[in-house]
Amino acid sequence: MFRTIANEILLHGKCYSYLDYLSNKIGGRLTGSPQAAAAVEYTYQVMESLGADTVFKQECMVPHWVRGAKETAKILSNESGEYAVNICALGRSVGTPVGGITANVLEVHSVDELNKIGKAGIAGKIVFFDGAFDETLVQTFAAYGKAVIQRWAGPSMAAKYGAVGTVVRSMTNTLDDYPHTGAMQYNDTFPRIPCCAISTIGAELLDKVLKTDPKSKFHFEMSCQTLPDEKSYNVVGEIRGTEHPDEFITIGGHLDSWDLAQGSQDDGAGIVQTLEVLRTFKALGLKPKRTIRFVMFMNEENGEKGALKYAELAQMHHENEIAAIESDAGGYSPRGFGVGGKTEQHRKIVSWKDLFLPYGIYDFTGGEGGTDIEPMQKSGTVMIGLMPDSQRYFDIHHTAADTFDKVNKRELELGAAGVAMMAYMLSEYGVN
Amino acid sequence: MFRTIANEILLHGKCYSYLDYLSNKIGGRLTGSPQAAAAVEYTYQVMESLGADTVFKQECMVPHWVRGAKETAKILSNESGEYAVNICALGRSVGTPVGGITANVLEVHSVDELNKIGKAGIAGKIVFFDGAFDETLVQTFAAYGKAVIQRWAGPSMAAKYGAVGTVVRSMTNTLDDYPHTGAMQYNDTFPRIPCCAISTIGAELLDKVLKTDPKSKFHFEMSCQTLPDEKSYNVVGEIRGTEHPDEFITIGGHLDSWDLAQGSQDDGAGIVQTLEVLRTFKALGLKPKRTIRFVMFMNEENGEKGALKYAELAQMHHENEIAAIESDAGGYSPRGFGVGGKTEQHRKIVSWKDLFLPYGIYDFTGGEGGTDIEPMQKSGTVMIGLMPDSQRYFDIHHTAADTFDKVNKRELELGAAGVAMMAYMLSEYGVN
Repeated sequence: MFRTIANEILLHGKCYSYLDYLSNKIGGRLTGSPQAAAAVEYTYQVMESLGADTVFKQECMVPHWVRGAKETAKILSNESGEYAVNICALGRSVGTPVGGITANVLEVHSVDELNKIGKAGIAGKIVFFDGAFDETLVQTFAAYGKAVIQRWAGPSMAAKYGAVGTVVRSMTNTLDDYPHTGAMQYNDTFPRIPCCAISTIGAELLDKVLKTDPKSKFHFEMSCQTLPDEKSYNVVGEIRGTEHPDEFITIGGHLDSWDLAQGSQDDGAGIVQTLEVLRTFKALGLKPKRTIRFVMFMNEENGEKGALKYAELAQMHHENEIAAIESDAGGYSPRGFGVGGKTEQHRKIVSWKDLFLPYGIYDFTGGEGGTDIEPMQKSGTVMIGLMPDSQRYFDIHHTAADTFDKVNKRELELGAAGVAMMAYMLSEYGVN
Repeated sequence: MFRTIANEILLHGKCYSYLDYLSNKIGGRLTGSPQAAAAVEYTYQVMESLGADTVFKQECMVPHWVRGAKETAKILSNESGEYAVNICALGRSVGTPVGGITANVLEVHSVDELNKIGKAGIAGKIVFFDGAFDETLVQTFAAYGKAVIQRWAGPSMAAKYGAVGTVVRSMTNTLDDYPHTGAMQYNDTFPRIPCCAISTIGAELLDKVLKTDPKSKFHFEMSCQTLPDEKSYNVVGEIRGTEHPDEFITIGGHLDSWDLAQGSQDDGAGIVQTLEVLRTFKALGLKPKRTIRFVMFMNEENGEKGALKYAELAQMHHENEIAAIESDAGGYSPRGFGVGGKTEQHRKIVSWKDLFLPYGIYDFTGGEGGTDIEPMQKSGTVMIGLMPDSQRYFDIHHTAADTFDKVNKRELELGAAGVAMMAYMLSEYGVN
């Protein structure tokens, strides 16, 4: 059956052309944007045309943050001169006043370092979080996990000590000139200060200029703002189970993306792989014993409102959501699955491991799940996350370079095949 | 020790900058070209500067085939019209007469099909080998292995039945407009007819036109030719073993490449990974028990003269070449090693498998070795080949797209780390 699934996808797969449409016809799909709405309609239509038993939308209110037109920055040094650098606003950031802000810079490499310096060294300054990825970690998501607190919580931590803005080194392994956006979260105990990401080339330059001239200033101007919440949707397709229709297996990715490019790897890939699994089940006439839900989650990037809504409705309807698989780590060559669950459930799923080996999927040791399915975990749903090769992911993650041409057709298809195989096993054999 | 090796390479690796030089400063390094000579000098100097115990060249005479300026083709149909298509000469092909050749086309999908048709259907025609990759094979090298006989032996097989030229569908999984070159081999029992590769988009078009108008003609003109043999070199660096200096472990890749681009993946990657292993042993002060040879083989693509010379000299000097590792499958994320050897030797090396797992290297089942080390096999040398992820390799293999930007720094470094680890184990523990 695994061979049949793989052949169907490698020979007749449509996920690459779905991704072409999502990337090149719709484009970046920031929550609340017209493109996000278009993606809701597109994936609804695709799932209907593929012959899902039912397709429906789950309404949810979502935040509507917009970047605006202005996003500029420069380093100002009396000794070395003036340098324009590439920045972008972090998601949820407030804008700067018109004309921007200009201040002296305090460079730190971690939030610990920030806490040690305290108010006297921070007040009135722009804090520059320059902690780099730990390159010795083979799994790049581990490096991301260690560094990302600077982006996520750094602005409010700095504001606590009187900082007027923050600039964070882009979350990437690569030295290049793309700023990498991503969500931050204000702690409302402290003032909301504007915060941006700087490209790693910009970060290296700022570090260098500060070393020769510690009195250098940083200037940035951003016109981003948060508009009133918008109505949006998760899109859900379903194939009803033949034997245990009340046991649900959810597979999905997130439909929204950042606005800087096409969101092809993050997470167009996860969306079209989910559609591909539905297509494959229908094309092969597979009738799963348990119900499979194909879910396009809304708003993963800056609010997780779709994920929360899905879990809330599942609980309200007392659904028995036995397992959930998320693909949100890019459409690269699959290498494994992170698998959660109670000891026996985990053991059962991992016992299928050898079946996946001919498809290059060997690693069942990684972190489980994904952001969109996480809210289901407290109800006992077994969390499963597709783990593709991670080396290229943070080169383009949340940047203007996350475009369709970065995705390889066969890598994308092999990932879809892996998810389809896992969905098949779960629907045939359950988790207990 | 594996952790130390990996950290050294991931934090201080130089292979990516070596590859930048080889790709962007030297460029395509077809055997016999000034660029191939420049690459000999460059890698010699790098190995000297890295502090190898000795660096030397092995002289060998190599073929000198040149593409020339002219390479054009078109499909001519009285019904559908005229279409220019992208072709390139196959390595070793004779050129066409000035003005090119024009003939009716016989389309086949395998050499078996050709043999069934026989002389009456073939004489005077251009044979179009349109056998595509088998997309159901997860390892793309397996698909290449099945299809490449059309390119390698097809021209003489067609000439045997009186064909006047051949055109072969490019050896790739991708539908795009790059023709993929590569070597062919004339059988001198039959006339030497000109032969080219056509892009897969061109092949699809030719197939379509032939279906509507079987009397369509194909025209191509190429000015490639074979010049007199040239003198060239393998470049060899050595770290002498401390305990068993007379047991040799060879690691290497090939210095020559096709001329259409920069040869960055094929096989710049293998060359700079080899240099990286040398750099790492020296940087860490590792003193291997057995002698390690770092070999830049010349002329893998169209003659293997360097490989043959290396094996010939090893035999002449009665060297005990216990094992050889080749990296010639691209600088993508490593997944495994193909391991040869006698049963006990094979078992011993595969028993190290779990040590490699934290670095994503898990698969020790693949085909052994590589073209450059193959001539040593008959002397009992254990053949080992690095197996990177293969999904993207044939997208760019032997095309104008094999450029530096296709290589990911961390993927390249992880491959180098894998080779360094394997070289370390072999030099510490031997193969028996």
